[in-house]
Amino acid sequence: MAAPISAHFVAAAHGTFQIERVTAVCGETLASAPALSVVPSLTPALEASAIWRLRGSTGHVRYVEQAEKVALARVTPPLGRSEAGCAVMIPIRKTDAWWELAQDERRAIVEAQSQHIAIGLRYLPAIARRLYHARELGEPFDFVTWFEFAPEHAPGFDELLALLRATTEWRYVDREVELRLRRA
Amino acid sequence: MAAPISAHFVAAAHGTFQIERVTAVCGETLASAPALSVVPSLTPALEASAIWRLRGSTGHVRYVEQAEKVALARVTPPLGRSEAGCAVMIPIRKTDAWWELAQDERRAIVEAQSQHIAIGLRYLPAIARRLYHARELGEPFDFVTWFEFAPEHAPGFDELLALLRATTEWRYVDREVELRLRRA
Repeated sequence: MAAPISAHFVAAAHGTFQIERVTAVCGETLASAPALSVVPSLTPALEASAIWRLRGSTGHVRYVEQAEKVALARVTPPLGRSEAGCAVMIPIRKTDAWWELAQDERRAIVEAQSQHIAIGLRYLPAIARRLYHARELGEPFDFVTWFEFAPEHAPGFDELLALLRATTEWRYVDREVELRLRRA
Repeated sequence: MAAPISAHFVAAAHGTFQIERVTAVCGETLASAPALSVVPSLTPALEASAIWRLRGSTGHVRYVEQAEKVALARVTPPLGRSEAGCAVMIPIRKTDAWWELAQDERRAIVEAQSQHIAIGLRYLPAIARRLYHARELGEPFDFVTWFEFAPEHAPGFDELLALLRATTEWRYVDREVELRLRRA
């Protein structure tokens, strides 16, 4: 893993991805907008055009253990594959109760109880994924999760989402917005 | 734990703390300056006055387990105690090799091999401590650690530092600057 990758998510009239649908899964929604861009840094023009903006930064793994890291590395695809015309952006916030848990308690919920890592693994390499951390940036969400896949894998992606949302871990989610995107 | 606490560390001609000594423990130093202030947000005047600036944000515990969390909570003092006239700011950066480790590998180094949490506990409540995360903010350091104690606990603090710097965990530190401060 190299240095953290910083990203700004800008919803505006024009952008790299067309926004097909915005769903408030839980808590307050985000305003609908025609398009979204993901950029490493903002320009004044981009800032002025924004209907809304979010920010995140990649980081080191928080729960993944060594054997899982090896298994994930073996099948994790890059972002930006030419066949991956579908993208989904899911900003998520977890409750204060989650953040007050100790590391071993959070790990037990993430994997022993919820199998978050094992479930994700089953959908690789079809579904490319990148996790951005946002909580310590003072953002309204704790994470922005980004997914990319080819249109034929959309049913698999829906299944992955349904499995994760049924877990114990998801009881700690108090805001979640789902944006379905198409590469413009 | 409430929301993350964001802090800007501003070295300038005047400030809340007098800088008594700047030591480059490892890697590049920070410029010496007469004083330091720690503020939740910057003003244009403060920004203009800065000799250098760093930023950090508190966050949830990354390695502390449940029993340790309870033990720490029992003896952790607040910052800003009137008798705690001494402060020390230690910005730290860890190597890429550290950040590439999985969670269980980092936890094993932090506690099983280095007893970072157990050592810290021994110096509570004399030495108040707050950890700010900075890596995902794009800062030149990964952490800023902040300590406060009464002058009679300075020898204890020196001992704490010596113990931590002798650990396996510290082999992963590639930049560390120590600033000795006195409340102005």
